[in-house]
Order: sequence, then structure tokens, then C-alpha cells
Amino acid sequence: MPSYTPPLRDMQFVLHEVVKVTDELKACPKHADVDVDTVNAVLEEAGKFAAEVLQPLNIQGDTIGCKLDQETHAVTTPPGFKQAYAKFIEGGWPALSCDPEFGGQGLPFALNQCLYEMLNSANQAWTMYPGLSHGAYEALHAHGTPEQQKMFLPKLVSGEWTGTMCLTEAHCGTDLGLLRTKAEPQADGTYRITGNKIFISAGEHDMADNIVHLVLARLPDAPQGSKGISLFLVPKFHVNADGSLGKRNDIFCAGLEHKMGIHGNATAQLVLDGAVGTLVGQPNKGLPAMFVMMNAARLGVGNQSLGLTEVAYQNALAYAKDRIQMRSLSGPKAKDKPADPIIVHPDVRKMLLTAKAYAEGGRALAVYCTMLLDKELYHPDEKVRKDSEELVALLTPVVKAFLTDNGHTATNACMQVFGGHGYIKEWGMEQFVRDNRINMIYEGTNTVQSLDLLGRKILANNGASLKKFGKLVAQLVEEEGVNEKMAEFINPIAYLGDQMTKFTTEIGFKAFQNPDEVGGAAVDYLRVLGHLVFGYFWARMAQVALREIDAGNQDPFYLGKLQTARFYFARLFPETASLMRTARAGVASLLDTDAALA
Amino acid sequence: MPSYTPPLRDMQFVLHEVVKVTDELKACPKHADVDVDTVNAVLEEAGKFAAEVLQPLNIQGDTIGCKLDQETHAVTTPPGFKQAYAKFIEGGWPALSCDPEFGGQGLPFALNQCLYEMLNSANQAWTMYPGLSHGAYEALHAHGTPEQQKMFLPKLVSGEWTGTMCLTEAHCGTDLGLLRTKAEPQADGTYRITGNKIFISAGEHDMADNIVHLVLARLPDAPQGSKGISLFLVPKFHVNADGSLGKRNDIFCAGLEHKMGIHGNATAQLVLDGAVGTLVGQPNKGLPAMFVMMNAARLGVGNQSLGLTEVAYQNALAYAKDRIQMRSLSGPKAKDKPADPIIVHPDVRKMLLTAKAYAEGGRALAVYCTMLLDKELYHPDEKVRKDSEELVALLTPVVKAFLTDNGHTATNACMQVFGGHGYIKEWGMEQFVRDNRINMIYEGTNTVQSLDLLGRKILANNGASLKKFGKLVAQLVEEEGVNEKMAEFINPIAYLGDQMTKFTTEIGFKAFQNPDEVGGAAVDYLRVLGHLVFGYFWARMAQVALREIDAGNQDPFYLGKLQTARFYFARLFPETASLMRTARAGVASLLDTDAALA
Repeated sequence: MPSYTPPLRDMQFVLHEVVKVTDELKACPKHADVDVDTVNAVLEEAGKFAAEVLQPLNIQGDTIGCKLDQETHAVTTPPGFKQAYAKFIEGGWPALSCDPEFGGQGLPFALNQCLYEMLNSANQAWTMYPGLSHGAYEALHAHGTPEQQKMFLPKLVSGEWTGTMCLTEAHCGTDLGLLRTKAEPQADGTYRITGNKIFISAGEHDMADNIVHLVLARLPDAPQGSKGISLFLVPKFHVNADGSLGKRNDIFCAGLEHKMGIHGNATAQLVLDGAVGTLVGQPNKGLPAMFVMMNAARLGVGNQSLGLTEVAYQNALAYAKDRIQMRSLSGPKAKDKPADPIIVHPDVRKMLLTAKAYAEGGRALAVYCTMLLDKELYHPDEKVRKDSEELVALLTPVVKAFLTDNGHTATNACMQVFGGHGYIKEWGMEQFVRDNRINMIYEGTNTVQSLDLLGRKILANNGASLKKFGKLVAQLVEEEGVNEKMAEFINPIAYLGDQMTKFTTEIGFKAFQNPDEVGGAAVDYLRVLGHLVFGYFWARMAQVALREIDAGNQDPFYLGKLQTARFYFARLFPETASLMRTARAGVASLLDTDAALA
Repeated sequence: MPSYTPPLRDMQFVLHEVVKVTDELKACPKHADVDVDTVNAVLEEAGKFAAEVLQPLNIQGDTIGCKLDQETHAVTTPPGFKQAYAKFIEGGWPALSCDPEFGGQGLPFALNQCLYEMLNSANQAWTMYPGLSHGAYEALHAHGTPEQQKMFLPKLVSGEWTGTMCLTEAHCGTDLGLLRTKAEPQADGTYRITGNKIFISAGEHDMADNIVHLVLARLPDAPQGSKGISLFLVPKFHVNADGSLGKRNDIFCAGLEHKMGIHGNATAQLVLDGAVGTLVGQPNKGLPAMFVMMNAARLGVGNQSLGLTEVAYQNALAYAKDRIQMRSLSGPKAKDKPADPIIVHPDVRKMLLTAKAYAEGGRALAVYCTMLLDKELYHPDEKVRKDSEELVALLTPVVKAFLTDNGHTATNACMQVFGGHGYIKEWGMEQFVRDNRINMIYEGTNTVQSLDLLGRKILANNGASLKKFGKLVAQLVEEEGVNEKMAEFINPIAYLGDQMTKFTTEIGFKAFQNPDEVGGAAVDYLRVLGHLVFGYFWARMAQVALREIDAGNQDPFYLGKLQTARFYFARLFPETASLMRTARAGVASLLDTDAALA
């Protein structure tokens, strides 16, 4: 069975030495008093919960999965899930970064980010239950009526109730404009909602007393397409004026999907049979309201893969040190043993370091992004708020797609380290691969992310947001441009940044002639930007490490960081050479293929 | 549920128009009479068996899997497996390319290759049962005593009995030198074998009357390590002199592994408790004897991924034409529908064409390789035999590792085309991903393949085999160097061939200083060679297609082939740009990482 040790040292490094979250958020009155000690104390407790309570439930969550009782429509989660959730509430974890007005602790999002990374490492399927709730909290916090907020937010904040997002129908996932679920206005101001939803994560379960479904549906007079979609709050149980639970609402789980992974999470088919709901936000403005939740969810999905990358790495590293098999090509290393531990083999190291570099690069980016979220909402300076918002918008598809694709590479590499044992369920490695696989699909496939990035976040604003990120890179290049020791980290990102600017202009011109050029380049483009972003953070991490080493710090952590940065630039970053080439290949090689795809 | 249509047209193209198998084998007396019509007739019947009998059993094979009765040690295969196997025997399929002396039909290996590609597309888990038998046949045919051959080969050829290869033990997979199973010589010339084997594919089942286990074990006086391993034939049931079955032998299935995929194949833990066996080949020369089987198995594993790549492609293509979602970026294409079929989106096409290009390139390579196997064994000219042997040895790790890695990319891409539905078991796409995943591991992990390629097949003979393949490329370059229409296919392989030659010399020098450099470059090196080989076959396929088109042939098959070749060179082949860079990065970035991997 796999094990998990919370990567507290590396989190502290990112939070306090690289991104410097508490310093950065000092200007926000809400976070002015948050100090390093508080952050570290919270992380330590969070890590204990993840490692001690959640992680031991992960394999049986996969093996046993969720069960639906077809008669009662009740879903039983795997053994231990419910009890772990009770402890989670008891510890006050759902409230960590929520608004104190509704019972939250008001701590920075970056801290919540680290909490969720650890939960995901320990048990992604379980973590989706509170994760979805947090998304529902965000959407209602931004768009709910005061009544909805008063009635539902405290319960979501405490975790007593959980939330869902009900978007997908059998015939529409990406293209929500096609959705058919109907909402009929009632005399009392509520709506009766009828339709069938599929793929509803955490859609039904036995862990909480009530479930707050956020449902997309059409009003009778709604315009066609995505401009005719409204958002509704549909509780599993009606809520009385005093906050107590009333009658069961007409929303039922009709089936659970049989999936490749995340078996511990109930992926529900939900039937709404005139279920009663209330409108969230404005009529026909459901998509923008839902996008508050969706953007949070996209960062959350990247975080799932970050968690899996980390835990897969830890277990592969331990195995590679323990398993003896063959001798090093350069002569025996463990002469007292009949063979060397497989970590002596260069390619085993490559697989391990790939996961490590992706985990640590991803952690830096994710913490940075969530720090920006706090600035976006709470910084006193409007310009800072706006800049932060733009950067988060730019980086969100990168976090979602780049981290989940990297998670795919990393979990597969770590499984490969185990040889044949990696394919056997008991070792837990193949579960990481299967659980991670959904992350590349849901909350907008990675192709959709790339179109969002290149089409909307970059070309639609003439590269303004990209330039904002480019300034950060340029600043680092300027800072360290004369430092010879930093050249191996600075030169590649300086070169790639330059290349990307040119290529972005180029693709802008081509897209003007033929909009399909965007679709032909976007996926490769996103990965190139991902490497520029990771390169930037790896350079910053190397910068900190070099400074410490130069100052005489003997902690091997810093040398390890430097070695990982070197590995990243030598072995992973060069992927950009091919990506730039294929991104530039033009869309004809894809579209002039009717005979091939006949 | 997925469907499958045997790709007969493309197989015929490869067999008759590109590799020209019947012409090439005319010189071998054994195959002088094999004609195109015979080949096509066999393919058509084989395709029917795969599509009609095997394919419908694939999903339930995965869902239900194999069951072990702990009391009787009997294994029940999934519903329909046994009946399908009876039909397979009835059709004479196991005998297709076997020696007529033992009841075989003596047809070319290339035909058997195509049969097995289709079986794998239809049902990899099932196909492993006859696949392993065929490997056992090869090993006994090459190394068995006349008595062993007489007693066991006819039954393996007819398929009445099946075979296994028993190598792995819990503490050793790659490093067979560590194995502990013991063989005690008996007065009657037999051996009593005692030990525990794991990961034995098709190790126990209910499909055949007897199982012929080929077991690696140590004689009492054997030298340590891999030079002290002998090969034994250990039947599940003893065989009487008249060929009838005798007593049960002391080899039992003690457990079945719970795996990520290939659930329909019984992966057995076998306990040998003084089981009686006979020696195959010479004492302490078990590994070379087993390598006959292993080499066949490595080609067979590549073929498994080829089959999965093809079937995944077919189903993703059908889905992409059927599923409507969003509009094309360049304006609606299916104006009569509420959205366009997703095949209009460039990235969906990229995913489809990736699978198609890998399937068709893999098919050409695999057919070519198996054609060489026939030349190696049966060509009257010794030089041709030797050249063929060298080329097969060079290309075997490429077929094994490149095709299985490509299968990983392709099955994942095809699953991705389905969006969320790809993650749901009922659609069958995620099963292709899971089943394929073992192919990158067993019969020598892909890292082991790359070390075999670069260390033993290339550097150890100073690049002589590589030069042999280089000559084929040079010949094509010379043939088509002045044909402007071929430039887009010829230039990239000419350039890469040149680069590889230089790099191979370079790595040879570096490895002389530090043998670990081989391990640091091998995996990337193998992929580069894979692309050179695929590039060569794609250029040859484009050459045939262009000739047909120029000659006025209106069959859209040729235009499709040309478009796929263009896609391959524009979008997949450029991976070599990054691979050459990382292969050249040197091993220090991997080995100077002790602090990072502390």
C-alpha cells in the first residue's frame, strides 16, 4: 500500500521563500496579520489529517467504490469516507479560506491550496466532495441572493452540507448551449426544474445531511444557445425558514457511472422531476455565474494532479531505493548486495525527477496563482486587483491543462518505476494513473483549455495579459542577466519568451485569415507557455537556492532544489523545441485530411 | 460498446504494395507458392473470427475477469473465452505459420502477424492465451529434444494444449540472474522443480486440456547469476507415452493478480512443489533458449499495441463523426444541426490522425519485421539470412518499445476524443488504455528495450546493424532525391539519418568514458530511431500512393495515405527535435542529483 508524507518543507519554501505569500498579502487588510507561524501550524495539522485519516482510505475507496440503492436512490460511500468527513468538519477545515461573515476563518487562498494539495495526494476521490462544496460556496458567495447566502453559506462553510455543479447532459458537455433542462417559474417566485443531468460529481452520498445542487437550466422564454441558460439552487432537502430540513426535493440519483478511476466519488446521473429551485444571479446569465465556480474548479483540478504527482513521486522514490535489480552500467554500487537498488539507473532517475520537477514547479505556480486570487479580491489598489485578475485568467488554463497533462506523464512514469508491480492494484500506483486521467477531461477538456488560453485570454486582448506575464520574466532576466551562475536558468526562458512573442504575433495574423489556425496551434501553444511559466518558477527557485548556498547554508534541501532545476532545464524544458515546430506547422496538415479520415 | 472492422485494405496495401511479401519470399522454397489470393483469403477469414467471435467478448472479459477456486486451484476464464478458443482451434488458426512437420500450415510469419494484430484489436486479454502458446512452440521448436518436440509440438500447433513462460519471481523480473527456483536431477533423467513464480500470463485456465510451462530454474551446481539458469518443460498434466494425459503435476496456481487491465487473462502466481520437468536445451543455457521465446514475445507485445491503436482509432473516428458539440471556429459546417460534429475541430483531428499514423506506420514496420523473420530462417542465401537476422535484432526493441509507447499516446488520445464519456467503462475506450499499459512493461520494460538497442544492438557492434538500416534509408533517398513531390517525406529522414549517425558516434565516445551515458541517452535514442524507421516507412507508403495517384488511380485510399503521411511528418516526426536535444543532454543532469533524490 502506498504511503504519504506531507511535503511541508517544500510548501514552506514556496510559500515563504519563493512566492512570499504573507509579505505579498500584507497590503490586504484582511490578511495583514497572517504570519509565517500561523501558516506553518495550519499546514502541519492539515498534513496530519491527510496522511493519517484520508490516505489509508484511498485504496479501499477504489476497490469498493460507491453503491446506489435503486429503490431509495441512496448512495453509500466507501468504508470510512463518512467518518473521515465528520472529522474534517470537526477540524473546521471547510471554513479555512471562507468569509468570516458566514463562519469562515478568512485565511488566504494559498493556504487552502496547500490543504487541498495534501488532501488530493491522500485521496482524490474523497477530496472531490468538499472540493465541489467549496466551488458552490464561491458561486453563491459571488452571485447568491442575500436570502440564499444566509440560508446556505454557513452550512457550506461548516461543511454540514455539500455542494455540486450540475451542468452536463448526455448530449452536451463542452457545448452547454445545447442543454435542455427546463425551469418553470412558479407563483411563489420559485421554479420547477425538469431534466436529466449526468456526470455529477459528489451528486449523491451519505456524508452530509443536505446537498446544495447548482443546476443550469432554461427558462421558458430563454434565447437559444448559451445566452439562454440560467443558474438555480436546488437543495436535496428543502430548508425551512428556521434552517431545519424540510421535505425531500424531487431530484434523485438514477444511476452511478462505472468509471476508469475516482471510484470513491459518486458520479451521479440526476433526474430532476419538477424539483423546486431558486434563481441564482440574473435570468439567462447562468453561465457567467457558473463560471465563478468553474474557474475555481479548474484551478482545483490542476491541484488534483499536483497532489497525485507528489504522492506518486514519493512512492516511486521509496521503491527505487529499496528494490534491487541489475548492476549499474558503471560498476556495482551496492557491493554487499546481489544487485544494486534501481535508483542507480539513469532512466529510473529520469522518471523520478520528471515527477519531482513537475510536482515542485506545479506547487510554485499553484501557490502563486491562489495568492493572486486574494489580491484580485482584497487588495486595496485597484490596479493590483486588475492585474492580478488578468494574470489569474491567463494562468488558469495553464494550471488546469499543463498540470494535469504533467500529472499523466508523472503518474505513468512513477508506475513504470515499479515494473510489473506497477500494474498490480495492491501497490496503488496504477490507481494514481487512473484517478489522474479524469483531470485531463473534466471542467473543460485540455483542448478546451488551450482554446480558452490562445483564443480568449491571449489573441482576444492582443496579448496584453501575456505581456503582463512577460514582464515578470523580463524582470527576472534583468535581475539575474549578469549572474553567471544563473545563466543556465535564465537564458532558456529569455530565449523562449522572445520566441513566444514572435509566434503569438504570427499566429494572430494567421488566425485573422483563418480562425481554424487557432485550433491547430492551441494545444502545443499551451504547453509551450506552460514551460515558460514553469521555467520562470524554476529559475526563481534556483535563484533562492543559489543565494542560500552562496550564503553558506548547509541545508541539503537547497542543493537538491538546484539539482532539480538543472534536471528540469536539461530534460523537460527542451520539449518546447518540438512544440514550437508543431505549433507552427499550420492547420492544413490537420484539415486537409478528409480522405484520410473518410 | 466499441466495434471493430478488420483493416483488410490497409493490410493488403502493406503486404502487397509496400513490403511485397509474396515477392520477397519467392526465393524461400518454403514460401515460393504463397500467392496474393491465398494471403487475402486467409486475412478475410481471420478478420471475421476476430470481429465476430472475439470482439464481443472483450468488455465482459474486462468486467468479469478470471476467477480462481482456491480449493481446486482451477481458474475459470470469462464467459465465452473457452468457446471462442474451441472455435479458434477448429479453424486451425494456431497452426497458421507453424512447421508442417508438426501439423502446421507453414504460411509466412507476416500473415500470422496480421492475424494476431486483428486478434489483439478484438481482445488482447484473450489473445495472450494462444500468443504465449506460440512462443512456447517457437522455443521448443528451436531448443526442444526430439522427444519433447514429438510429444508437445503437435498439441501446441493444434492449440489443444497451451504454453507459458515462467520467468519472474517476486524479487526478480528484469534481473533473472537473481532467480531462486531450484531443479533437482532425478535418477530417471527428469528434474524435480521447486519454487514460486509470479506474473505468469495464461498461467492457469480452463480453455485447454493441458498447459506446457517453460520454467527457468537453477541446477544444484549452477554458477551464480544469469549464467546458472536452465530451462525446463513442466507440463500441468504428465503425458503418457501414447500421448494421453497422465497424473496432475505438482505445479499449482496459488493466486491471481488484481491488475489495471487485461483482466480476461489469468496472471498466475504458480507454486512448483517438486513438479517434474525435463530439461530444454543445455544445462545453464536456459536464458539463450528462453530468448527465442522472448524475442518472439517482444514482437508480439508491439503487435498488441498495434492492435489496440487500430481499434481505438476506429472507434474514436466514428464517435468524432457522430458527436455534435460546438461550432467550427471558421463557421458552422453542419448548418442543419444545432452544432457541428466534433471532427471539424483541428485538435480532434490531430488526436485521430496521431492514432492513425501510429497504427499504419506500426503495421508497415511489423509486417516488414516478420517478413525478415522468414528470410532469416528460410532464405537460401546465407548473407540474406544473416542480414535479416541483424535487422530483426535491431528492430525488435523498436517494435516493442516504440509501438507500445505510441499505443499509450494513441489510446489515450482516442479516449480523450470521447470527452467525459471516454472515462466511462461502457464505451470501452478506457479499457484500451488500461490493457495497453502493460505492454510498456512486460517482456522487458521499455527502458530495458532501449538499453538493449543502444548498448547491445548498436554500440556493441560499432553501429554495423544501424548502418544496415541506414542503407535502406540512403537507397530510398537516392531513388527519390530528385522527385520534388517526395521532398517533404525524403528530406526529414535524410536529415535525421545524418544526425543519428553523428550522435551515435558521439554517444559511443562518451560511453567509453562513462558507461552510464548509455543509460542516460537510451530511451530518447530509441524514440529517435523509432521515428527514423517510421519516417522511412511513411516515405515508402507515400511513394506508392503518389505513384498510384500520378498514374490516375482514383481510389481515395491513396490520397488518404498521402494526407496521413503529411500529417505524420508535420506533427509527429518533429518530436525528434526535442529528443535529440535531451538525448544529448548528458547523464550528469540525471546522476548529479543525490541531494534531490535524498
